[in-house]
Amino acid sequence: MQTMIEEHSRPAQNALLQTLQHVGEAKTIVQQIFEMIGHSRFFSDFTREDVEQLAAFMQVYRANTGEMIIREGEVDDYLILIIEGRVEISKSDSQGESHPMTAVGPGATLGEMSMIDGEPRFANCVALEPTTFAVLSRDNMVRIIIEEPALGSKILIKLVTLLSQRLRATSSNLLHFLEN
Amino acid sequence: MQTMIEEHSRPAQNALLQTLQHVGEAKTIVQQIFEMIGHSRFFSDFTREDVEQLAAFMQVYRANTGEMIIREGEVDDYLILIIEGRVEISKSDSQGESHPMTAVGPGATLGEMSMIDGEPRFANCVALEPTTFAVLSRDNMVRIIIEEPALGSKILIKLVTLLSQRLRATSSNLLHFLEN
Repeated sequence: MQTMIEEHSRPAQNALLQTLQHVGEAKTIVQQIFEMIGHSRFFSDFTREDVEQLAAFMQVYRANTGEMIIREGEVDDYLILIIEGRVEISKSDSQGESHPMTAVGPGATLGEMSMIDGEPRFANCVALEPTTFAVLSRDNMVRIIIEEPALGSKILIKLVTLLSQRLRATSSNLLHFLEN
Repeated sequence: MQTMIEEHSRPAQNALLQTLQHVGEAKTIVQQIFEMIGHSRFFSDFTREDVEQLAAFMQVYRANTGEMIIREGEVDDYLILIIEGRVEISKSDSQGESHPMTAVGPGATLGEMSMIDGEPRFANCVALEPTTFAVLSRDNMVRIIIEEPALGSKILIKLVTLLSQRLRATSSNLLHFLEN
């Protein structure tokens, strides 16, 4: 396990992203991101100024139906925010068979764990329809923490809240199996 | 769910803490905390100055063998850092029967989820032997973020890393049950 700051000097290659269409810098779609806020738990208390600051650190990509955005087991370090479209999350079993777990749409964030801890991806994320998404790399997350500490704290608080809720939900599910 | 900052004006009562022995302010045991750093993943890259700053926001308590430090279902908002002793984490089943899950010692942190999201406690934490621990309330975490933003970011990064690792471990366990 590496900490965010240590990792700063060795950015991941993020090779999978290079297979997808790069649309441009997220600062060109601030208005679209801002309008999406109503659908996004992640951004629920971000001001217009917060979104503008954050967008300056994000890049926008597009994936066609069936294209993979995140591949299980791969080492890369970005978080994605879905702007438009729909993404299926699936997990491979020990026979390599893929099992869909859930699907998410605009406003959802994916890939936080690897952005944070640098460990391999936990699941596959595949576009179910043409999907536009903004990418935040760990390098840029570190830059935000250093260059825009107030925004950095706000994002980190969002991340701890999100992870805490997922951990509660997952732990409850696990206990259900352990008890029965 | 409430966010950390919103909750600032309505501190939890933290009633259970009031039943335990209050030893004093953590700044009196900075040296002990600093020496413990070697055992603690949480503090692994904290400098002496970081620990001094953080300790100014923490209070130290002591629990005797068998005393409860955190009670499942209760609403309170502190995280604890074990300084000395040993704590059992257990979870009650639907019949109210308590099932031990694990036990942890010096350097471990407990209670992060409720400190972060303000939701009821997920499990019980009971002292297995006389235990000394430092307490960080959500109110003081918010103060650190506002008053000492660099330290605040460092703690938040630790929290996201810790939660991310627990979520990976718990999700893997859950998948094991789902697949079999």
